Amino acid sequence: MGISRGALLTDQYQLTMAQLYFRHGLHDRDVRFEHFFRRYPDYGEHEAGYAINAGWGWLGRWADRARFGEEEQAALRSHRVEGHRLFSDDFVDWLGGLSWDALRYESVPEGRVVHANVPITVVEGPLAAAQILETPLLNHLNFHTLIATKASRVVEATRGGAVLEFGLRRAPDEGGIAATRAALIGGASASSNVGISHEMGVLPQGTHAHSMVQVFMTLGEGELGAFRAYADMYPDDCILLVDTIDTLESGMPNAITVFEELKRKGHRPIGVRLDSGDLAHLAVQASQMLDRAGFEEVHIVLSSSLDELTIFQILTQIADEAPRYGADPDRVIGRLLYGVGTRMATSDGKPYLDGVYKLVAVSDEGEWRPAIKVSDTPTKIVNPGRKRVRRFYDRRGLATVDLMSLHDETLEFPLEVLHHHEFGVTRVLAEPDSASEELLEVMSLGAPVDDPAAVGEARKRRIADLERLDPGVKRLVNPHVYHVSVTRRLADLKAKLIAETT
Amino acid sequence: MGISRGALLTDQYQLTMAQLYFRHGLHDRDVRFEHFFRRYPDYGEHEAGYAINAGWGWLGRWADRARFGEEEQAALRSHRVEGHRLFSDDFVDWLGGLSWDALRYESVPEGRVVHANVPITVVEGPLAAAQILETPLLNHLNFHTLIATKASRVVEATRGGAVLEFGLRRAPDEGGIAATRAALIGGASASSNVGISHEMGVLPQGTHAHSMVQVFMTLGEGELGAFRAYADMYPDDCILLVDTIDTLESGMPNAITVFEELKRKGHRPIGVRLDSGDLAHLAVQASQMLDRAGFEEVHIVLSSSLDELTIFQILTQIADEAPRYGADPDRVIGRLLYGVGTRMATSDGKPYLDGVYKLVAVSDEGEWRPAIKVSDTPTKIVNPGRKRVRRFYDRRGLATVDLMSLHDETLEFPLEVLHHHEFGVTRVLAEPDSASEELLEVMSLGAPVDDPAAVGEARKRRIADLERLDPGVKRLVNPHVYHVSVTRRLADLKAKLIAETT
Repeated sequence: MGISRGALLTDQYQLTMAQLYFRHGLHDRDVRFEHFFRRYPDYGEHEAGYAINAGWGWLGRWADRARFGEEEQAALRSHRVEGHRLFSDDFVDWLGGLSWDALRYESVPEGRVVHANVPITVVEGPLAAAQILETPLLNHLNFHTLIATKASRVVEATRGGAVLEFGLRRAPDEGGIAATRAALIGGASASSNVGISHEMGVLPQGTHAHSMVQVFMTLGEGELGAFRAYADMYPDDCILLVDTIDTLESGMPNAITVFEELKRKGHRPIGVRLDSGDLAHLAVQASQMLDRAGFEEVHIVLSSSLDELTIFQILTQIADEAPRYGADPDRVIGRLLYGVGTRMATSDGKPYLDGVYKLVAVSDEGEWRPAIKVSDTPTKIVNPGRKRVRRFYDRRGLATVDLMSLHDETLEFPLEVLHHHEFGVTRVLAEPDSASEELLEVMSLGAPVDDPAAVGEARKRRIADLERLDPGVKRLVNPHVYHVSVTRRLADLKAKLIAETT
Repeated sequence: MGISRGALLTDQYQLTMAQLYFRHGLHDRDVRFEHFFRRYPDYGEHEAGYAINAGWGWLGRWADRARFGEEEQAALRSHRVEGHRLFSDDFVDWLGGLSWDALRYESVPEGRVVHANVPITVVEGPLAAAQILETPLLNHLNFHTLIATKASRVVEATRGGAVLEFGLRRAPDEGGIAATRAALIGGASASSNVGISHEMGVLPQGTHAHSMVQVFMTLGEGELGAFRAYADMYPDDCILLVDTIDTLESGMPNAITVFEELKRKGHRPIGVRLDSGDLAHLAVQASQMLDRAGFEEVHIVLSSSLDELTIFQILTQIADEAPRYGADPDRVIGRLLYGVGTRMATSDGKPYLDGVYKLVAVSDEGEWRPAIKVSDTPTKIVNPGRKRVRRFYDRRGLATVDLMSLHDETLEFPLEVLHHHEFGVTRVLAEPDSASEELLEVMSLGAPVDDPAAVGEARKRRIADLERLDPGVKRLVNPHVYHVSVTRRLADLKAKLIAETT
C-alpha cells in the first residue's frame, strides 16, 4: 500500500514547522485551532444556504492507521536539502511517539446542519501535533461536508424520492469512497459502490448496463433475450435499462413483456431505468405504458447527468406535461427513483469546500491568549479566542441564529448579538422562546465512531435539522441568508486585536 | 482498512451482470472494451484542446491489492434481497479465483498527449472479468487524466516557471493522493504532499504557514522573530511567507533583514511567498525590493487560488505594469514560482473527465463480431470493432491526425481519412512525410509499473509530445480542434451496423 495514506498524508510544511516548534520548545504548548468554512458552496447557477457537516468518523479511520512508524520515519530521515538532513533524529524519534490522543476535540456531530464562519471542529492541545493534523483534517472533513451538502440538496429536490448514488466511475479516484459515505449521510438511500456500502451496512444497489444488452444483441438474442436472462436471474430485484435501442419503441414493450412473465411466476418486478433522451417526457410515457399494462407499482429510475437543478426542472416539466397525456403528475413523480452519479460525487459546479483551520488562541504560562490574523478582506479576519457556539430556535421551533460567544462568557437575556463581521448590524434575542443548544460536542478521534450505526445516527440528525430549518434557507437558488452572530464581548475583543496588530 | 479499497471498489451491477454471465456460460467469452473520453475538459471560461493520459500505473497499484479474498467473499455471501442470497456460492467461489492477469491490455503510455474519442486503453479477454474491471478502471484513469491535463495547462501558462502542487487540504479526500501523482506527470515540479511525493521519488516542498507567524506574534516575538527562527532552522531552504501582517510594509522588509543575516552566515536564501492581495502588483514591488537589497537570485512564490487563467492574467499584468516601476517584466516573471492548490487538485470548473468504457466487439466461435450502441446523439455512437490507433506527423514534425483503423486493415497511401463522426468530412493523407506511430502499446497491469522511474518517464513523454503539438491546439482559450479520423472501412462498418440496429 505504501506510505501515502497514513501519517504522511500531510503537507511538508506542517512537518518543517513542527520541527521548528520542537527545536524552540514550543511543540508542547497548548493552542487552539478552529475549522470552519467561509462560504456555502456556490455552484454557479445555484447555491447552498446551509451545509451538512460530515467526515468526523472518516477522519477517525485515518487517525486509527496514521502513525509515524518505521517506514514513515525512514522516509523522513532520508530527505536532504543541499546535502543536509532536513529532519533531525531527535525530532523524528519524537514523531514516532506522537499520538492523536494528545489532542482534545470538539465537533458538531455528523449529519447536522452547519453554517458558514461558525467553528464546526475545534482542536486544542500541543502545538506541533495540532499543526501536523491540519492537512489530513481539512482533506477529510472539507470533502465529506461538500458531498453531504450536495447530496442533501439533491435529495431535497426530489420532494421525497429516493436517491441512489451511482458516481464511482467518474468520482475523484478513491475519494469516491468518501463520496459514497458522505452521500449516505447527506440523504442518499443507497449506493452502487459495493465495498463501502457493505461497510456502512447499506445494501449496494444497481441495475444493469447497456453492455449487457449489447452482448445478447451481438449473439443474436436481442434486447428481449437480455431482459429475460436478467429477470430469470434476479426475479425479485428486477430493474431493466430500457434505452439501449429505443426507449418507447423497444425497451418499454420488451420490459413489459418480461414483467408479465415475472408476474405469472409470482414475482413483483421493481422498475425500469431511463438513461437518455428527454427524461421528463419519457417518464410520463413510460408511466402510462406501465399503468396500462397493470404495473402501477413499478418504479421508474431516472439517470443521466442528474443534479438538484436538473431534477427540479424534470419535476416541473412533468407537472406541466403529464396532464396533456391524461396522466396524474403526482403519480408519475411518486414512482420516480433517481440514480445520481458524477455531478453529486464531484460536487460539480463547486468541487471544493473552502474550509480552513485557523489558530485562534495560544496558551502562555497557563493563560489563553487570543490570536488573530488580519486581512484586507473583512470576511477573512478570524474570530479570535476560545469560543462556544449556541443555536437558538424561535417560537415555531425553527433555527434562527448560530451565536459565537467567548468560552467563559455567560449569556444574559435580552441579549444583543452582532453580525459576525459587518459591524453595526445587531439584533436582540429575547429569552429564547423554545430552546437553544450547544453545537460543539466533545469527541474522540478514532474507533469506534465510524460504524454503520454512527452513519445511521448522522442520517437521522440531518432529517431532524432540516425539519427545523427555515424553508427559505433551503431554497435551491438564491437562498435566504441564515443568521450567524457574535456576542458584544467577542466583537470587542476582535476590534481590540485588530487595532493592536495594524 | 476495511474492504472498500480492494476488489469491491466497483459498482454493484458489475457483479450482478458477471453472475448472470457466469450462469449463462458467457463469463469466459472473449470481448473487447475500449476506454476513451468524449470531450476535452471544458472549464467554463476556458477549455482544453488536448489531454495528458495518466493513471495506468496507479490502476496497477489497485490491481495488486484487489482480490476477492475471504473478507470480500463473506460480504457478498451476506447480501440478500427478499430473503434470498443475491450471489450464489459457485459464483462467489469463481470470483475468489479471478485474476486480472486473465485479461490482455493495451494502453497509451502515461504522460502522452491524447485526444477525445480515441481509445486510450483497451481491455480484451473474458467477459465477466472485463466487466467487473470497468468501474475501478474508470475511477482511477478518468481522474488521473483529468488532473494531469489540468496540471499541464497550468505549467504551460507559466511560460517555463516551476509549479508546486499544494492542493491536499481541499483535494477530494484521498483522491488527493492520486491528484499529486497526476500533477507530477502533468508537469508539476514537486508537491507539498509528503507520502506520495516520497514514493514517487520527488522531494516534498513547502514554505511555512501564517499560523507560525501568529504563534510568534502571540508570544511577543513578532514576524521578525518568526522569520529568524525559520531561517535559523532551515538556512539552505528558506522561503518566507510575507503577507501575515502587510506584505510591503512588514513582510518584505523583515524578510530582507533575515536574508541579509543568512547571507552573512554564508547561506543563500531561496524565496518569499506572496499569498494574498494583487499578486502581479506585489510581485513587481517585491522583485524591486529584493533587487535593491542585492538579492537578485531570490525567487518569488505566488499562491492563492491560482489556475492557468489566473496565471496567464498575472503574467500579462506584470508585462504591462513592471515598466512603469522601472522593472524588467522578464526578470520579474523569470524569478516566479507557483504554488497551485485547490483549483488544480480538483480540476475546478470541470471536476470530472467524461471517460467511458464501451463494448466494441464480442467473440463468437473464434470470430470477433463488432458491437455497437446506437444513440440519438451522433457523438455518442461508439466506433465498433477491434481497432488500432496511429498518429501521423507532418513535415514540421507536428502531430496532424490520430487515425482509428480496423485491426486487420493495411493502410495504403494516399489514404482517405474521414472525420470520426461527421460523415462527409474527409481528408487525404499522402505518404506520411516524417513519421507515424502506433499509440496503443501492450501493457501488463500491476507491479512494477508504478515506480518512480515510470513516473519520470511519463514526465518526459509529456514534454516530448507537447513539443510536437501545434501551438493552436495548446491555446488556453478556444483551442484549435485536433483531427481525429477513421478509415473508410471503419466508417462503412459503423454505417452498416447502425442500419442493422435501427
